[in-house]
Amino acid sequence: MIKVAIAGASGYAGEELVRLLLRHPEVEISAVTSRQHAGKTLAEVFPKFGHFEAAHRVPFILPDAEVLADEVEYTFLALPHGVAAELAVPLLEKGCRVLDLSADFRLRSPEVYKEFYGKDHPAPELLSEAVYGQPETYREQIRQARLVACAGCYPTSILVPTLPLLKSGLIEPQGIIADSLSGVSGAGRKADLGYIYCECNESARPYGIPKHRHLSEIEQELSLAAGEEVVMQFTPHLIPLNRGILTTLYLNPMMEVHDKESAAEFSSKVEDVYRQFYDQEPFIRIDGDSGILPDIKNVVMSNVIELGWKVDPRTGRLLVLSTIDNLMRGASGQAVQCMNLMMGLPETTGLM
Amino acid sequence: MIKVAIAGASGYAGEELVRLLLRHPEVEISAVTSRQHAGKTLAEVFPKFGHFEAAHRVPFILPDAEVLADEVEYTFLALPHGVAAELAVPLLEKGCRVLDLSADFRLRSPEVYKEFYGKDHPAPELLSEAVYGQPETYREQIRQARLVACAGCYPTSILVPTLPLLKSGLIEPQGIIADSLSGVSGAGRKADLGYIYCECNESARPYGIPKHRHLSEIEQELSLAAGEEVVMQFTPHLIPLNRGILTTLYLNPMMEVHDKESAAEFSSKVEDVYRQFYDQEPFIRIDGDSGILPDIKNVVMSNVIELGWKVDPRTGRLLVLSTIDNLMRGASGQAVQCMNLMMGLPETTGLM
Amino acid sequence: MIKVAIAGASGYAGEELVRLLLRHPEVEISAVTSRQHAGKTLAEVFPKFGHFEAAHRVPFILPDAEVLADEVEYTFLALPHGVAAELAVPLLEKGCRVLDLSADFRLRSPEVYKEFYGKDHPAPELLSEAVYGQPETYREQIRQARLVACAGCYPTSILVPTLPLLKSGLIEPQGIIADSLSGVSGAGRKADLGYIYCECNESARPYGIPKHRHLSEIEQELSLAAGEEVVMQFTPHLIPLNRGILTTLYLNPMMEVHDKESAAEFSSKVEDVYRQFYDQEPFIRIDGDSGILPDIKNVVMSNVIELGWKVDPRTGRLLVLSTIDNLMRGASGQAVQCMNLMMGLPETTGLM
Amino acid sequence: MIKVAIAGASGYAGEELVRLLLRHPEVEISAVTSRQHAGKTLAEVFPKFGHFEAAHRVPFILPDAEVLADEVEYTFLALPHGVAAELAVPLLEKGCRVLDLSADFRLRSPEVYKEFYGKDHPAPELLSEAVYGQPETYREQIRQARLVACAGCYPTSILVPTLPLLKSGLIEPQGIIADSLSGVSGAGRKADLGYIYCECNESARPYGIPKHRHLSEIEQELSLAAGEEVVMQFTPHLIPLNRGILTTLYLNPMMEVHDKESAAEFSSKVEDVYRQFYDQEPFIRIDGDSGILPDIKNVVMSNVIELGWKVDPRTGRLLVLSTIDNLMRGASGQAVQCMNLMMGLPETTGLM
Repeated sequence: MIKVAIAGASGYAGEELVRLLLRHPEVEISAVTSRQHAGKTLAEVFPKFGHFEAAHRVPFILPDAEVLADEVEYTFLALPHGVAAELAVPLLEKGCRVLDLSADFRLRSPEVYKEFYGKDHPAPELLSEAVYGQPETYREQIRQARLVACAGCYPTSILVPTLPLLKSGLIEPQGIIADSLSGVSGAGRKADLGYIYCECNESARPYGIPKHRHLSEIEQELSLAAGEEVVMQFTPHLIPLNRGILTTLYLNPMMEVHDKESAAEFSSKVEDVYRQFYDQEPFIRIDGDSGILPDIKNVVMSNVIELGWKVDPRTGRLLVLSTIDNLMRGASGQAVQCMNLMMGLPETTGLM
Repeated sequence: MIKVAIAGASGYAGEELVRLLLRHPEVEISAVTSRQHAGKTLAEVFPKFGHFEAAHRVPFILPDAEVLADEVEYTFLALPHGVAAELAVPLLEKGCRVLDLSADFRLRSPEVYKEFYGKDHPAPELLSEAVYGQPETYREQIRQARLVACAGCYPTSILVPTLPLLKSGLIEPQGIIADSLSGVSGAGRKADLGYIYCECNESARPYGIPKHRHLSEIEQELSLAAGEEVVMQFTPHLIPLNRGILTTLYLNPMMEVHDKESAAEFSSKVEDVYRQFYDQEPFIRIDGDSGILPDIKNVVMSNVIELGWKVDPRTGRLLVLSTIDNLMRGASGQAVQCMNLMMGLPETTGLM
Repeated sequence: MIKVAIAGASGYAGEELVRLLLRHPEVEISAVTSRQHAGKTLAEVFPKFGHFEAAHRVPFILPDAEVLADEVEYTFLALPHGVAAELAVPLLEKGCRVLDLSADFRLRSPEVYKEFYGKDHPAPELLSEAVYGQPETYREQIRQARLVACAGCYPTSILVPTLPLLKSGLIEPQGIIADSLSGVSGAGRKADLGYIYCECNESARPYGIPKHRHLSEIEQELSLAAGEEVVMQFTPHLIPLNRGILTTLYLNPMMEVHDKESAAEFSSKVEDVYRQFYDQEPFIRIDGDSGILPDIKNVVMSNVIELGWKVDPRTGRLLVLSTIDNLMRGASGQAVQCMNLMMGLPETTGLM
Repeated sequence: MIKVAIAGASGYAGEELVRLLLRHPEVEISAVTSRQHAGKTLAEVFPKFGHFEAAHRVPFILPDAEVLADEVEYTFLALPHGVAAELAVPLLEKGCRVLDLSADFRLRSPEVYKEFYGKDHPAPELLSEAVYGQPETYREQIRQARLVACAGCYPTSILVPTLPLLKSGLIEPQGIIADSLSGVSGAGRKADLGYIYCECNESARPYGIPKHRHLSEIEQELSLAAGEEVVMQFTPHLIPLNRGILTTLYLNPMMEVHDKESAAEFSSKVEDVYRQFYDQEPFIRIDGDSGILPDIKNVVMSNVIELGWKVDPRTGRLLVLSTIDNLMRGASGQAVQCMNLMMGLPETTGLM
């Protein structure tokens, strides 16, 4: 059994990592950290894990790179941005491989980090080494990485459907719109009036527009795929459910679509590209252009990203829809998928 | 127009008072208080009231009895217990009539207050004067009262169905069980991890058992009705909805019920008593012992309490069910009903 | 009291009309129809209205134009499309004024009706006379109308924010995208597996794309405002709440927006236009370009439409957001607003 | 791999069996039946299982005992009561072991079946052989059984906490009250107006009182444990969530409890009994009498039953609370636990 640690195991992403890793056949959670819960066991903090023996054995400790690096080979950082980098640096120095779920190492440019996160990057020397933790895009690099910067939730729901279309030259790089809906766990486990039950239930609202922080990593990856600097529109909304993201993408085809025939032709090109990129992917489901459309309930509690699309002959646009579980594919599930790659395990281990 | 003030208008009960009183044809909100929002207008704090001209006129001020008493004849206190009493005393001294939605003046005994609320009562001299604000039970006293202690949400859902049965000698005073379900607004608008969306949604849990504070006022009123000291069982649960309380009462008939005939006979006695007490009540709906049962969705956003029952020939018990909207009949709606009585207005004014 | 009837009072829009009209100070519900409930009273079918005396007096009857026209001056049709027209024709012949909540008379062109609704229009001779029931746009025509075709829910959420911008030449008529989220009551009260609780709760899904029926009336009204034929993109989604629509509009400014200054300048033009068109409107709330954004919970149970916007200097786009209660402003509230106009009453009567 | 079939795989319990068995390391789903979906694959009917290769291989077929018995050794029946028995008889004859999730074989007495289910039992000769599928109670019998009648959802949530107390003589057999809350999946996947989203959301209601069908199996098992005929009170309520049951039990201790000391003494006896019966059980979590109380969110998507209690010195009663996931421990999870026993596998296989 390979020993791993989770730093920041008291939030939703951390708890989801615990849920996954307690069931993972090849790893053992050896340490979990939380300033707030230090001294308690996993089972005391999360009664729901009480039927796992390990949950009674593993105590929360204070975050300490030395202790962690002595104990484990791999550490997940489920910490706020800024805080994650502070722990990542000494962990790497001491030889621990790091999977960071924060935004700290997702950007290649410290300037863009400063623009979007409002402060100097705490460890810019690591940015060129960090690998963006989106397995379908960076599988080989992840295998070798010391530091994986796991992709964000919204970015995953946007990039997985968009990158193949850009790389294949099927859509225009500019003018992309992503309209996303997210469940409330995306806001994290924090005591904030805006997220108490009655403020979210029976409601829906946009937020973070027009310049949400996730734009920085989305545009970085789109630009790399397009070979030019891409600027796009991203509109996140909060909707009343626990888990899930639904993204609706408005895309402009490179070919003219103006009637049923050209729409069908373009749709079949889209399908070809998706099949070419993703047909062998265990965690991507392609609904195609007929019948079924992505639905959050069909991906909840799974690591799957579901893709569907429609070509509209009236407007000439391509609509692509994707759904993910924001805690699984948007955070902890994808992180475990990266971990499997780093460990040389089958990618689906512990994730089916 | 009669001028009224709302102290503590930033919580859910206060906001509901604002909603009701902005629409009330005979009163005018002249002042609202909130330490947090002082200086802002009602419309700034609650965008939802922006289509009322008054909402742009009325600013939040700091709670100050002198200012309030100069301005208005009636003040609602939607404040935490303890804090409410501090403001009530000077308001009454200055001649303002007070409707207190907190628990501060519901109990006749300062000893019981101390037992259940853990501190000395801040103004015990007012306890004998305060009238319990449950209109169907204390209508005449409320008309004359200077100080109305509006009944709690759970107590209303329990007392309205139980008092007539006790007063008529239909049920045994001891052995009463009330099992209640409440929506999350009952916990108030407060930033607390236990009430953030994902901790309440897709869940349900008991709390405050076996000795919830509301027991003190429930048992006080049951004892007065029964003419003996009543001890009862009360089990509140939190369920995932915004508004509403459903209470299931387990009651022991005074007569023996052991077959269909005796059950039908007892059920008809129950119906007679309810009709006698409540048939003319505008805000009590009697479902009876057949077909329809109380359902929270049928009372939400109304001041109605819905009553239904079943007599069980197998166990010999009487089951009574009641539903209310906890912010309306359980708090602000009932408070406005009391206010109407105090003002000599038709009781339903502004409440249909 | 003016007598009115509701045909099809058993669905959600019909029930909402009952709720509003029972409280309306100038009208009296004299008849309600339902094939399914004929013979029962309003109170029997809807226990929630049991505290209104009228609910015990008014029985459901079968839909019969002669009976209705004898009884009332105004009839609301809350019936499926196709069925509504069949009743509207004889009602109008007998001198009854009709407010139709279905789609039957919203389109000026029977060809477009056939294209979108899949059958010949049942009464094309009435299309030129029918007035589109969107009060802010057709107030004067509604006052005089015999037949008002109340605007649809999505169309209202899209047209109210878009028409003034088009009429003022602030945005390009083509390229408009409307991405909408709707609560489940929008699907009507029907026993359909896709709408049972567990299929909608903890989920979200697109539907009816890319050519939803409501496009026909939206494009008709946009084209009239723009003076050219408008084709637009409309993507509705189902989200897990009872009531409410949130629409996000992606619009292209007529002027170039490329930095903070030009964005601020354009935003202020947008504000000017909205103030000019809507500042005196009792049911439109303008959030403006700062701080507050539309939120479904701030319009639920009200007839208000809330408008907010952001100009994005990065993409050059205008984002406008609107929220409504789909049963109020999207159906029955707006219908009552139209009725008030037809009756010469203050437009807000019974709607605050 | 042991081959199994699921008859009636289109409902919620059947779908949950598919979810569990696709992931089970020792079995293979060889056949699924559904009259409605015959001819389609699992993946076509349930897109959510599309990332399992088997879901594309296994087609729905019509229910046919001969075909099933040829194909598999074990068949789960997730069919309506009455229908299940019709298929069970020929399956058993052909040598297939049967796990029935319906109520058909839970009762020992055909008379009680007729009383509660309103018709003659279709196969009374099998009643004496069938084993009640509650593993903690009938583990050894289940191992050998040909026909397991899996315990119902409410019964499981009531019997697991109650049986040990009765067997140990800690509580009075008569006077038991169970007040239960259930998520909407408990009503099954059926198109019924009472279960569409807006009729359940933001609501809560009792149903099936005072003589719900599940009383028959609950009282049968309580009577066996008590050694006398037990009659009890059971009140189910529907609450707005997908999965989960919370049961509150009101029990009368055999010893007198009247103060803190006697309450603490009795509570510790209760704990002793639960530890004795359940300490080694992998799927029972004992919260005890302090701090944590059962919460539905802590058992959702798991096979665990969570138990907590309070002894009330004021009323002398014992309150026991239990939570389960109604589709897991209340149906399919418990059925797989039984299957593991029948196959001689570790009981937790595929269920952690």
